[in-house]
Amino acid sequence: MTHRLTIWLVCLGASFIHSQKPITKVNQDRLENRIFELAKFGLQTNGETERVAFSEADVKARKWVIETLEKQGLEVSIDFAGNIVAFRKGIKSGLKPISFGSHIDRVPNGGNYDGCVGSMAALEVIETLNENKINTKHPLEVIIFSNEEGGVMGSRAMSGHLGKGALEVVNSTGFSMGEGIMRLGGDTTRIADVHRKKGDMAAFLELHIEQGGILEKENLNIGIVEGIVGLKWWDVVFTGFANHAGTTPMNVRQDALLAAAKFIVAVNEVTNSFEGSQVGTVGRIKAAPGAPNVIPGKVVTSLEIRDLSSAVIENVFQAIKTKGEEIAAQSNITIEFRPLDTTAAPALTDMAIQKEIETSATKLKLTHKYMPSGAGHDAQDMATIAPTGMIFVPSKGGISHSPKEFTSAKDMANGANVLLQTLLALDKKLD
Amino acid sequence: MTHRLTIWLVCLGASFIHSQKPITKVNQDRLENRIFELAKFGLQTNGETERVAFSEADVKARKWVIETLEKQGLEVSIDFAGNIVAFRKGIKSGLKPISFGSHIDRVPNGGNYDGCVGSMAALEVIETLNENKINTKHPLEVIIFSNEEGGVMGSRAMSGHLGKGALEVVNSTGFSMGEGIMRLGGDTTRIADVHRKKGDMAAFLELHIEQGGILEKENLNIGIVEGIVGLKWWDVVFTGFANHAGTTPMNVRQDALLAAAKFIVAVNEVTNSFEGSQVGTVGRIKAAPGAPNVIPGKVVTSLEIRDLSSAVIENVFQAIKTKGEEIAAQSNITIEFRPLDTTAAPALTDMAIQKEIETSATKLKLTHKYMPSGAGHDAQDMATIAPTGMIFVPSKGGISHSPKEFTSAKDMANGANVLLQTLLALDKKLD
Repeated sequence: MTHRLTIWLVCLGASFIHSQKPITKVNQDRLENRIFELAKFGLQTNGETERVAFSEADVKARKWVIETLEKQGLEVSIDFAGNIVAFRKGIKSGLKPISFGSHIDRVPNGGNYDGCVGSMAALEVIETLNENKINTKHPLEVIIFSNEEGGVMGSRAMSGHLGKGALEVVNSTGFSMGEGIMRLGGDTTRIADVHRKKGDMAAFLELHIEQGGILEKENLNIGIVEGIVGLKWWDVVFTGFANHAGTTPMNVRQDALLAAAKFIVAVNEVTNSFEGSQVGTVGRIKAAPGAPNVIPGKVVTSLEIRDLSSAVIENVFQAIKTKGEEIAAQSNITIEFRPLDTTAAPALTDMAIQKEIETSATKLKLTHKYMPSGAGHDAQDMATIAPTGMIFVPSKGGISHSPKEFTSAKDMANGANVLLQTLLALDKKLD
Repeated sequence: MTHRLTIWLVCLGASFIHSQKPITKVNQDRLENRIFELAKFGLQTNGETERVAFSEADVKARKWVIETLEKQGLEVSIDFAGNIVAFRKGIKSGLKPISFGSHIDRVPNGGNYDGCVGSMAALEVIETLNENKINTKHPLEVIIFSNEEGGVMGSRAMSGHLGKGALEVVNSTGFSMGEGIMRLGGDTTRIADVHRKKGDMAAFLELHIEQGGILEKENLNIGIVEGIVGLKWWDVVFTGFANHAGTTPMNVRQDALLAAAKFIVAVNEVTNSFEGSQVGTVGRIKAAPGAPNVIPGKVVTSLEIRDLSSAVIENVFQAIKTKGEEIAAQSNITIEFRPLDTTAAPALTDMAIQKEIETSATKLKLTHKYMPSGAGHDAQDMATIAPTGMIFVPSKGGISHSPKEFTSAKDMANGANVLLQTLLALDKKLD
């Protein structure tokens, strides 16, 4: 019994020591310094950074990223779509890589955090693993996607969704996507080879700033992304009768703008009447003939609806359509809904990975919530070919695509730590 | 007693004979034929007429009008502003003329009745007086105003309201007003001499088509115009915060277009909440940045209010402003009202002349109503220098400034007869 007790005490001691072992964490200062380092590529005299995809700044920043990844011992290549792919070997053979990353290109007059946080955190995770001599079963793959802001180009190519026509789209640098890919070291003639199939990756993870201001407002550390919302666009056409604003009494007008105004209010009310986090937006409006002294005879507005569920998008649309038709009938005008090509199916993240992110956040004592991503990301396309997870960190005021973007070093490190812990957990669980 | 009775019977007979004397009336067919004749000037291969001021068609049509007036024995001249002024002597010396007329120029792609009805009716009234050998105490003056559609040019010059700057405004013919005046036989260097002072005319009368469709809708023959409404214009600026339509939840948006939409609905409701015939119109709207996937951060709309009373315009505006500020506060955006230069003071017609028009209509067994004119007319400027009356006749569907304009021969003749009777009544009453 004494012997048994001793064994039990030894076991207890071992367990106690194990639970006290500190969680491997990234270097917060080094991460933030890399963000500052990256911001120098494209730095303007006004203090802002311009680094649109294919620009000189983009090319130079990518070179620096490649060198930094190589210094960490990774095998770096550029795929035919211009994506930077950095490979770290795993210790078990025959496993597909766990991939993670984001992008470093920016919108014109953009900020230092959108895409950059996920990219520099991926680098920081690799450096932390190296420092701590942690080897994973799976190979790891850091991917810095090309031209995310110009239409998730690199990730679309990798998931097989980049059509030929897209290569002709010119961005603010003056280069077409096709020309840009060549500039980045890709090869448009072989771009189809970039396409990965389901099963080519064990998992994909992306850390990104949260662009809705929800985490900051609710004072939370981590967003566990349930998916990237889908969207649909329509043109809504209101046809009334243009007439003299002086001579036409109020009660006989067929005012297309008045009807459109009632519709815009209705879009807001109907969208809010559903439970959930769907959004409905009218962002564009044109009234003809458009003179202060003429009652508008024709108005065209945009309508956009986004949600994680295609069914919800359809339900909200039908409710808006019904309301719009009521308004049209009451206003003695006609209404027409013209669906536009711009649609994106919702991309759900993997539920098991969501759970791992939650477990990691809890282990790190970080507050968190499940939420959709209203914005599109590279993870959206990766979700179609791999089990995907996405981690959000707060962005001040929810501001993005602006030089005013800001995420604190602490918040970035929190996200990078969740990324690291999730990656390690997946490495253990996945084959 | 027998003698007395005889006198009484003679008087009764005379009175009876007098009341049976038919009312002098215009020739309906001749009036309509002149409308058709005038429509030939500028006739296009598609059957429509183009006769913008200063065009070749305008110049030729004016020549025909001058010849037709001269055939009626009138002394015709062109004043320095290009107005055609045709003079018929009165039988009593020292009296100022009773003037009447309208315009024959048209908007691009306009119709055959706007201005033309009043002009051809003026000619028809002269011919009817001649045929019936009716001489008036007062001299009569037919005025065909130059370039009404391009900013009531001739009548503004005559009332002293045509600024130097206006002469530089170019219309669709490519000629500036200054060049156009020279083309019509005017003289821009002496245009100030055209200015008539209060007392220079005994009265001014204008017959015109009613452009609101009210007479037709209410099945009435004659509109007795109480005045030409004044108007004020504003730009209304809504400033919210442009943001990503995907990432920004509905409840934290500062959507400038949603606020503007609520405002447009409020403009309609507030304007309708006042008794009277004031109108409030939003005809122009611009939303920035104007993309379907961006919540608009800034919207600018026009606001126009018209009424016969400046006080009503101000009251309606204040009520709209109060409501707009409420909407802005609730929407977490700002609103600003920027008054524009485009304002016109209401121009009231002479009440004694209104009564004469009513008496004439009643005598002619024509149904009628008092009403404002929502559109501007030459009479608007003449009202500032002479006691002015204005007579409306129905226009099909209230359509104007369109090839679809139509007024029946019967309606035109009704208007011309009221014009003739009013003129004869004023000739008797005025000194």
